[in-house]
Amino acid sequence: MSSTTLNARVLFNAVPQGVPIPGETTVYDSSQTIDLENHPLNGGFLVKTLILSIDPGMRTRMRKPEEKGYVPAYAVGELLEGFGVGIVLRSENPDVAVGQYLQGRGFLYQQYFALPSLPLGMFFLNRDPGVPLTTYVGALGLPGKTAWAGWKEFSRPKKGETAFVPSGASAVCSMVIQLAKLDGLKVIASAGSEEKVEYLRQIGVDVAYNYKNVDTRGVLEREGPIDICWDTVGGDALNAALDNAAVGARFLECGQMTILNKVGSRALIIENPMPTMGKGVSINFISSPLHIPKHLAEFNRTVPAALIKGTLVRSPEDVRHGLECVGETIRAVQMGETKGKAVVVVGEEA
Amino acid sequence: MSSTTLNARVLFNAVPQGVPIPGETTVYDSSQTIDLENHPLNGGFLVKTLILSIDPGMRTRMRKPEEKGYVPAYAVGELLEGFGVGIVLRSENPDVAVGQYLQGRGFLYQQYFALPSLPLGMFFLNRDPGVPLTTYVGALGLPGKTAWAGWKEFSRPKKGETAFVPSGASAVCSMVIQLAKLDGLKVIASAGSEEKVEYLRQIGVDVAYNYKNVDTRGVLEREGPIDICWDTVGGDALNAALDNAAVGARFLECGQMTILNKVGSRALIIENPMPTMGKGVSINFISSPLHIPKHLAEFNRTVPAALIKGTLVRSPEDVRHGLECVGETIRAVQMGETKGKAVVVVGEEA
Ligand SMILES: NC(=O)c1ccc[n+]([C@@H]2O[C@H](COP(=O)([O-])OP(=O)(O)OC[C@H]3O[C@@H](n4cnc5c(N)ncnc54)[C@H](OP(=O)(O)O)[C@@H]3O)[C@@H](O)[C@H]2O)c1
Ligand SMILES: NC(=O)c1ccc[n+]([C@@H]2O[C@H](COP(=O)([O-])OP(=O)(O)OC[C@H]3O[C@@H](n4cnc5c(N)ncnc54)[C@H](OP(=O)(O)O)[C@@H]3O)[C@@H](O)[C@H]2O)c1
Repeated sequence: MSSTTLNARVLFNAVPQGVPIPGETTVYDSSQTIDLENHPLNGGFLVKTLILSIDPGMRTRMRKPEEKGYVPAYAVGELLEGFGVGIVLRSENPDVAVGQYLQGRGFLYQQYFALPSLPLGMFFLNRDPGVPLTTYVGALGLPGKTAWAGWKEFSRPKKGETAFVPSGASAVCSMVIQLAKLDGLKVIASAGSEEKVEYLRQIGVDVAYNYKNVDTRGVLEREGPIDICWDTVGGDALNAALDNAAVGARFLECGQMTILNKVGSRALIIENPMPTMGKGVSINFISSPLHIPKHLAEFNRTVPAALIKGTLVRSPEDVRHGLECVGETIRAVQMGETKGKAVVVVGEEA
Repeated sequence: MSSTTLNARVLFNAVPQGVPIPGETTVYDSSQTIDLENHPLNGGFLVKTLILSIDPGMRTRMRKPEEKGYVPAYAVGELLEGFGVGIVLRSENPDVAVGQYLQGRGFLYQQYFALPSLPLGMFFLNRDPGVPLTTYVGALGLPGKTAWAGWKEFSRPKKGETAFVPSGASAVCSMVIQLAKLDGLKVIASAGSEEKVEYLRQIGVDVAYNYKNVDTRGVLEREGPIDICWDTVGGDALNAALDNAAVGARFLECGQMTILNKVGSRALIIENPMPTMGKGVSINFISSPLHIPKHLAEFNRTVPAALIKGTLVRSPEDVRHGLECVGETIRAVQMGETKGKAVVVVGEEA
């Protein structure tokens, strides 16, 4: 007996000029079906997608194939790929058991997909029932691991120093802030809404403000100088931080939200390099695939337990439902319109 | 009995728009005299200036007082100040002996000047007769010490790696290149004239070229990727190096020759930040006053002896005579017209 099920998916359709446009940059496609019982596995296994992350970094993959980049460009006409959580429905691969949860990169933006073996960056997940599944693309996924690894690798925190985290309510930055507080730092952080500013206060930020109403330069002149800056935005906030950096300040460059969607030059501009040089600042670019492996064991020993205990808390989330909304969510993430880490629930557990 | 001697000097006269203009940005003034025997010392000492360095970095001090910077701005109407070598003619300070050589920062651009005590950054010099005096503003002065300290602090060289040093024949860079070769690296370096390229070959550069005739990007695509870049120029060479950086590359940002004299924005622009992030590059700004102290003892134990032995060699020099030519030499340095480290001989040794 065989029965077919809808197997909806999201395809990359065209390289965007600026902000990705739903239905144009990406398209939702419901033309495919799958026979879950009989779909040929050829020695591999079948995954049911449960959760997909809409990561800001997906924008960097939406480029012309000839443009250089570290993460491969999406190919036009092919499935989107990224971070998610899934469960194994069937398996012919002796290393992969049915019912096994999977987490990490290499998820196709489709309800069901077959893989020959675990791709690089996809891991078995020991699902803890005390932890919502969305956490595995947030505090226990790429954002949390990136924060942890980058902080451990480059921050060199000294108790009493001051850290600045612009747009600090993101999944990455909320972990950074909590690590900074555990290390005894004074933390200045901004966010783009009052709700997020309130969240920042809850996780212990000393100076929290809404950068849409309050001038960052003024805050840093009063509350700085800055010993550590964790930057995911670039642009004016980065330059305000550099201009208010302390001698020997460490900058951790983790993202460039304000320039990713610019039409034309997407350069990172340091407006006043000579004072920055005089202060002996270091700028460390964070690359999750490069920096996570070294720090993963310590992360796994520490962070899941801390989340269950409540000594670390998750970032706000913006949970949406169904692959139909992937395109719109990608746009909203790039516009900074999401109310927290953007997550799309694609399938239900069991 | 008293006799007066000419005490010529160079004053900062006006903040330049772009490249400093001799006679306008700085003025030579021969209106002063000094009575060397009777000039009041008030417990201090009298210095005869022997050598003055015309450092590229002097340009950063020629700014409006309200513009921030790490090294103080020159005040209009006041003497230029910088790096030099001098000898003590008279002293009422028990710590400073007549005939003592002095080296370092805090030299006034005047033939003779009195000081109450040794300023920060000025040191006693054990003059080695085997070493030309100009060396003390080159390989044994700020440039050599900056190269040494920056390299020891940030380069983390591994044998077999590749270093790139644009405009490598400068006083700073020639030391960097020799340290890189001693550490077993392959070195790619450029310069702005055939003579300098020839010098680069002599100090062991593996791939030396004149960047005015040969395209840097092409060279780096063939000979890279780059593990370490020592950058004193910024601009296109920096971006070519970033675009050809290896995973985990270290950039040592020591200067910005190509943008110091720009009218309007003097920003440091990273054209393609996302691939740079993907490769986990670190950019370390070098600040000589911050980084030299930690590494000075080892420098003093190693470099003077190596220069005498010939295992390290000095950079090319462009030696000029008399304070009258300071203004023109400043201009020439900023235009990249000098044939080596620019040095002005102001007085003769006894
Ligand atoms: N280097 C790496 O390996 C690596 C790995 C993972 C993530 N990242 C980067 O880390 C950053 C955070 O990632 P995440 O997953 O934690 O993100 P997230 O939870 O989706 O949060 C992103 C936040 O960025 C803020 N933002 C600031 N300026 C923006 C703008 N012009 N447009 C859009 N959003 C803007 C928004 O918060 P406000 O409204 O408060 O400003 C938004 O909520 C991103 O830049 C991402 O690319 C880097
Ligand atoms: N960060 C610090 O603490 C620190 C301390 C000392 C020195 N520095 C910096 O290190 C660099 C070298 O200093 P140095 O004393 O060794 O210099 P130098 O011997 O006078 O050499 C400077 C060289 O820069 C090159 N250059 C490249 N582009 C140029 C341009 N657009 N305009 C002018 N010159 C250009 C020229 O060589 P080519 O003709 O071969 O291009 C010139 O000979 C400078 O950038 C200086 O500011 C920094």
